[in-house]
Amino acid sequence: MSKGKRSLHIALVHHPVVNKKREIIGSAVTNLDIHDIARTARTYGVGSYFISTPYEDQHALVNELLEHWQSGYGATYNPARKEALARVRPVFSVDEAVSSLTKEYGRAPHLVTTSALEQGNTIGYAELRKKINEKEPVLLLFGTAHGLAQEILEQCEYSLPPIKGGTDYNHLSVRSAASIIIDRLLGS
Amino acid sequence: MSKGKRSLHIALVHHPVVNKKREIIGSAVTNLDIHDIARTARTYGVGSYFISTPYEDQHALVNELLEHWQSGYGATYNPARKEALARVRPVFSVDEAVSSLTKEYGRAPHLVTTSALEQGNTIGYAELRKKINEKEPVLLLFGTAHGLAQEILEQCEYSLPPIKGGTDYNHLSVRSAASIIIDRLLGS
Repeated sequence: MSKGKRSLHIALVHHPVVNKKREIIGSAVTNLDIHDIARTARTYGVGSYFISTPYEDQHALVNELLEHWQSGYGATYNPARKEALARVRPVFSVDEAVSSLTKEYGRAPHLVTTSALEQGNTIGYAELRKKINEKEPVLLLFGTAHGLAQEILEQCEYSLPPIKGGTDYNHLSVRSAASIIIDRLLGS
Repeated sequence: MSKGKRSLHIALVHHPVVNKKREIIGSAVTNLDIHDIARTARTYGVGSYFISTPYEDQHALVNELLEHWQSGYGATYNPARKEALARVRPVFSVDEAVSSLTKEYGRAPHLVTTSALEQGNTIGYAELRKKINEKEPVLLLFGTAHGLAQEILEQCEYSLPPIKGGTDYNHLSVRSAASIIIDRLLGS
């Protein structure tokens, strides 16, 4: 098991996503999405956790939160939280995250979506896990609100199958879905 | 795959748990722990989601929240949330949850703990999964704050091994830990 960073990177997308009526919206960044998913990401060695939002004021909020836990009072109060949040990277778009990873790896990452609905370009968990074990860069997108907009889904090379729990109900929070999917891809 | 309820039940314990200094405390119920874990539980067909707290005022809060989503405005605004919260059962202690399940099944449930630290009475995920598939009642406990108090851990027949993500870091939120563990026990 590697103790360092894996080639799996994740992005929490706040725009473009859809609302209940499937209209395209931008959602607000929430404190808890940042903390919970950062803690899971750090536990599993996810390389980067991008927070994607086009809004300047939302970047200011994210940066204020990171500052508190990275060098403010939070850093001494809870060093474990400092460590988890060290991999959070605010970006203005998915494209910015892709560009940034492309520079780091010298090649574009596999862009992979997760969705509660079945898409056309499905990749199995075992197959994606294999790519990560072979150190191929992967950027896995999670949508906030009622999910990623179609224009983002269409940009993705692959999509992971929806999580099925053996019932007809599938309304996981993005925090739960991210935890389950990361465990399936990187858990031992 | 069963569409109905499984014999796995869970309890989120707010007392007795420990704080940062390992002192025994009672933690506050949070809105998000109820919602997130209820959504995961419903997705996987978990039988009951007990919220255990000895405090009357905390019960009043939980009941107010359930009322809003079960029969108040929330029930029509978001029927899926209504359905998830239908399996939430406030109790005053773990003993009350055990008694209640004992009555339903005519036998005591296996009491199982989850802990970020290794305990003595470990049961593997596959073995516990087998018991659930054989419809044996299981009550799985999750601790809030810094985890379950020793007196609760000692009451448990089994403990699941800590979740390892292949790094030296293990600070998952209880919401993430619950999602991952439920997926490992009931996911397909």
